Amino acid sequence: MSAYDDLMAFQRETEALAQVAGRLGWDQETMMPAGAAEQRSEEMAAMESVLHARRTDPKLHDWLGLIDDLTLDPVGQANMRHIRRRYARTMKVPAKLASEIARVTSVAQGVWARARASEDFAAFAPTLEKVVKLRQEEAAALAEGSDLYDALLDDYEPGATAAGLEAMFGALRPRLVALREKILHAPHQPLPLTGEFPEAGQLTLSRELALAFGYDLNHGRIDKAVHPFSSGSGLDVRITTRTNPADPFNCFYSTIHEVGHAAYEQAIDRAYLLTPLGAGVSMGVHESQSRSYENQLGRSRAFTGFLYGRMRDTFGDFGISDAESFYASVNRVHPGYIRTEADEVQYNLHVLMRFDLERALIDGSLKVADLPTAWNSRFEADFGVKVDKPSNGCLQDVHWSVGLFGYFPTYTLGNVYAGCLTKAMRVALPDLDSALARGDTSPATDWLREKLQQHGGLHEPRDTVRRACGFEPDEGPLLDYLEAKFGAIYQF
Amino acid sequence: MSAYDDLMAFQRETEALAQVAGRLGWDQETMMPAGAAEQRSEEMAAMESVLHARRTDPKLHDWLGLIDDLTLDPVGQANMRHIRRRYARTMKVPAKLASEIARVTSVAQGVWARARASEDFAAFAPTLEKVVKLRQEEAAALAEGSDLYDALLDDYEPGATAAGLEAMFGALRPRLVALREKILHAPHQPLPLTGEFPEAGQLTLSRELALAFGYDLNHGRIDKAVHPFSSGSGLDVRITTRTNPADPFNCFYSTIHEVGHAAYEQAIDRAYLLTPLGAGVSMGVHESQSRSYENQLGRSRAFTGFLYGRMRDTFGDFGISDAESFYASVNRVHPGYIRTEADEVQYNLHVLMRFDLERALIDGSLKVADLPTAWNSRFEADFGVKVDKPSNGCLQDVHWSVGLFGYFPTYTLGNVYAGCLTKAMRVALPDLDSALARGDTSPATDWLREKLQQHGGLHEPRDTVRRACGFEPDEGPLLDYLEAKFGAIYQF
Repeated sequence: MSAYDDLMAFQRETEALAQVAGRLGWDQETMMPAGAAEQRSEEMAAMESVLHARRTDPKLHDWLGLIDDLTLDPVGQANMRHIRRRYARTMKVPAKLASEIARVTSVAQGVWARARASEDFAAFAPTLEKVVKLRQEEAAALAEGSDLYDALLDDYEPGATAAGLEAMFGALRPRLVALREKILHAPHQPLPLTGEFPEAGQLTLSRELALAFGYDLNHGRIDKAVHPFSSGSGLDVRITTRTNPADPFNCFYSTIHEVGHAAYEQAIDRAYLLTPLGAGVSMGVHESQSRSYENQLGRSRAFTGFLYGRMRDTFGDFGISDAESFYASVNRVHPGYIRTEADEVQYNLHVLMRFDLERALIDGSLKVADLPTAWNSRFEADFGVKVDKPSNGCLQDVHWSVGLFGYFPTYTLGNVYAGCLTKAMRVALPDLDSALARGDTSPATDWLREKLQQHGGLHEPRDTVRRACGFEPDEGPLLDYLEAKFGAIYQF
Repeated sequence: MSAYDDLMAFQRETEALAQVAGRLGWDQETMMPAGAAEQRSEEMAAMESVLHARRTDPKLHDWLGLIDDLTLDPVGQANMRHIRRRYARTMKVPAKLASEIARVTSVAQGVWARARASEDFAAFAPTLEKVVKLRQEEAAALAEGSDLYDALLDDYEPGATAAGLEAMFGALRPRLVALREKILHAPHQPLPLTGEFPEAGQLTLSRELALAFGYDLNHGRIDKAVHPFSSGSGLDVRITTRTNPADPFNCFYSTIHEVGHAAYEQAIDRAYLLTPLGAGVSMGVHESQSRSYENQLGRSRAFTGFLYGRMRDTFGDFGISDAESFYASVNRVHPGYIRTEADEVQYNLHVLMRFDLERALIDGSLKVADLPTAWNSRFEADFGVKVDKPSNGCLQDVHWSVGLFGYFPTYTLGNVYAGCLTKAMRVALPDLDSALARGDTSPATDWLREKLQQHGGLHEPRDTVRRACGFEPDEGPLLDYLEAKFGAIYQF
């Protein structure tokens, strides 16, 4: 056995344990009896302690010193890139700081949830200050003199920089704000969906949609949970969904979104199972898949025509008389405060403001105490509406409470990548719409699988998208797609 | 922190990890997608490897040397007894032998299943020979010159000996054989249940029965699985059930049986959570609870009167016209080959023969090649019937294929203990039947919880039962109970 083989055997066991820990998380959201919470937190802590011990094991240091990456094949070199990056990251952060971050963020989520429920930002501010300070310290340890925010971003999107994203987002913002204005002032406004849609029908149809988008139930399962999510890699990738009798689109499109994440994991080359290459390569690339499935495919005119028929089969007449009106209703843009409920146009405006605010929090130019004011004035500038209460403003997202700084921009980066992938895919598949109109997504999902998904972590994130598209990704295709799509729906 | 505190903190984390590994097993039987099996086996192996490393950690040796048990309180002394026993057991078996046993038994179960399906004992014999040989070697390492079978028994029933069980079982056998003869030749024979009982009704009623026997769904859940089982300790104890449209008793009584196991785990003093005292103390004591719930309570005249009414509410008229006939039908004794389908009388005869045969296999006086002949002749002697095929004979149980020698006798020991506990409980609760007749088991389950279950692993197994009963347990109460009950039903 070479040092590389020993390292990979050790790594394989670590990846298997990480899958077990992840499945505990799935169980907690879907199956765990309520009274088990206290014991579960000890079980999770024990798993984390085992994983941490393995990630800082002195054997890793020895192996990394013995291995000459240049003697390895491209797969071996990619494995070493991931392992070296993670090891360096782990070792740069003092153990005391890491455990303090774990301790504070484990409590902070509860503080945030209570503050949001009571519309009381002041109750959350001291906790958020602690979290910001700890993440600043961690960023300083990681950055070693370079940009603090870039150091945090690296956890979610290796290779991305705040400067690069700022340029991209700067180009997005004015065209999105203008598009939003034109849409909301268009004389022709689509009807919202109304009525009641029984849960059983929603669950049956959402399962059909999951299968239509290529979700493999032999290596996954669908359960109900409070929040939709996808969990696991390799041969066991599970998703959840939820229902709301008044809003079947929430069930259907969150299912398709999670199938995008899960199908990516399921499609990765089996040779990479339980190795660093055996999972989606970054948050941005992951989101490019879930958003392509949900929006560019699932909310297309062609696919909504199929969905319209299936909804009428399932629920009978629900007051929308033709497929064209249904398409407009699915894609209806309306004013709203909440990111997770936003349409394709306004969603990115939400992300852009969080990106700017969280960079200012991390570089210290924005104090936590001033966050509500900064949030509310930016919101009014971009959305034309005053924020009415903290739960509709800066208390709406869980992310910052659990220390996720640098995560938000990957949502819009994923949309930008989805725009690029769709542009390339539409050129490669000129007849795609005729398949989508029959509910057959396979030309598109096969294309994504072959061009991108199968490679897992083999290439760097941006390179993964560039290779699939055949061109350097930028924000142009997403903007062109949004302007064309919504211009047609809103007839301007 | 004292050495004892350090040891217990380490132990607590190990217990938490063992719970995680156990829940993976639950997931595999209830939730896991079929295609995940290959990945799951790597995940299980990784967990086993972590647990093994902890159980042989040199730190344990140091702590055990530093701690003077006599300075500890009774709970501390009991913890040390468990920890020292497990550590000594782990360290006595050479690592190479332990991993060889794991390797061979992981394959042997599949070989056994295929041999059983094709009625081909010869296809299983070479594998069983290997398993017997490995367990003999392990027993020799554990016994250090003492009895080999006792060393194996110690894994499941600490403190029990083959000699003690032989005396007990020797007293049971003639009276059980005689009782079986009288029953099967009685002129009055109860009617078997006939008809179809829809699954939905079985599941609803089995859930009601689980709650009636005190199962706590805030710390557990019920799912369907191929084989009913109970899984987990502490605050998360899950059970499974199964349905067969022609045999609702299988669903109801296997559910009550598993509730017996689960309620025991759920009742253990919370102070023992994730410590060596926080789980049922032995297989025999565990079985005493599941059997008391299932048989002495669940199959009593009083409780079957309640069940008769609930079954008529659920399924309508199913051809049994009164509660007395229903009671006889629930307790119907009929010839059969299969242990798991046997009634209260014949069940122990099955166990007794396995106990004798497996001792002979381990001491070498019975060769694997001669097992079918030995099995069949003993079966004919005790059951009066010739075995027609291996799947009805020595290929029926999975136990030996996975190396479980010393496990079978705990089933009958559990029945003996259940007999003793019932005798004491009936004295303490003279009005128990009037509660059971209303479907209220709480006087009995509260009594078992207070007298026995709450103590978990605090006392040795036999002592646990003795303290609950107030007398030395022996086979007398079980025999008296069976002769009285079946004499009344069969009118002799």
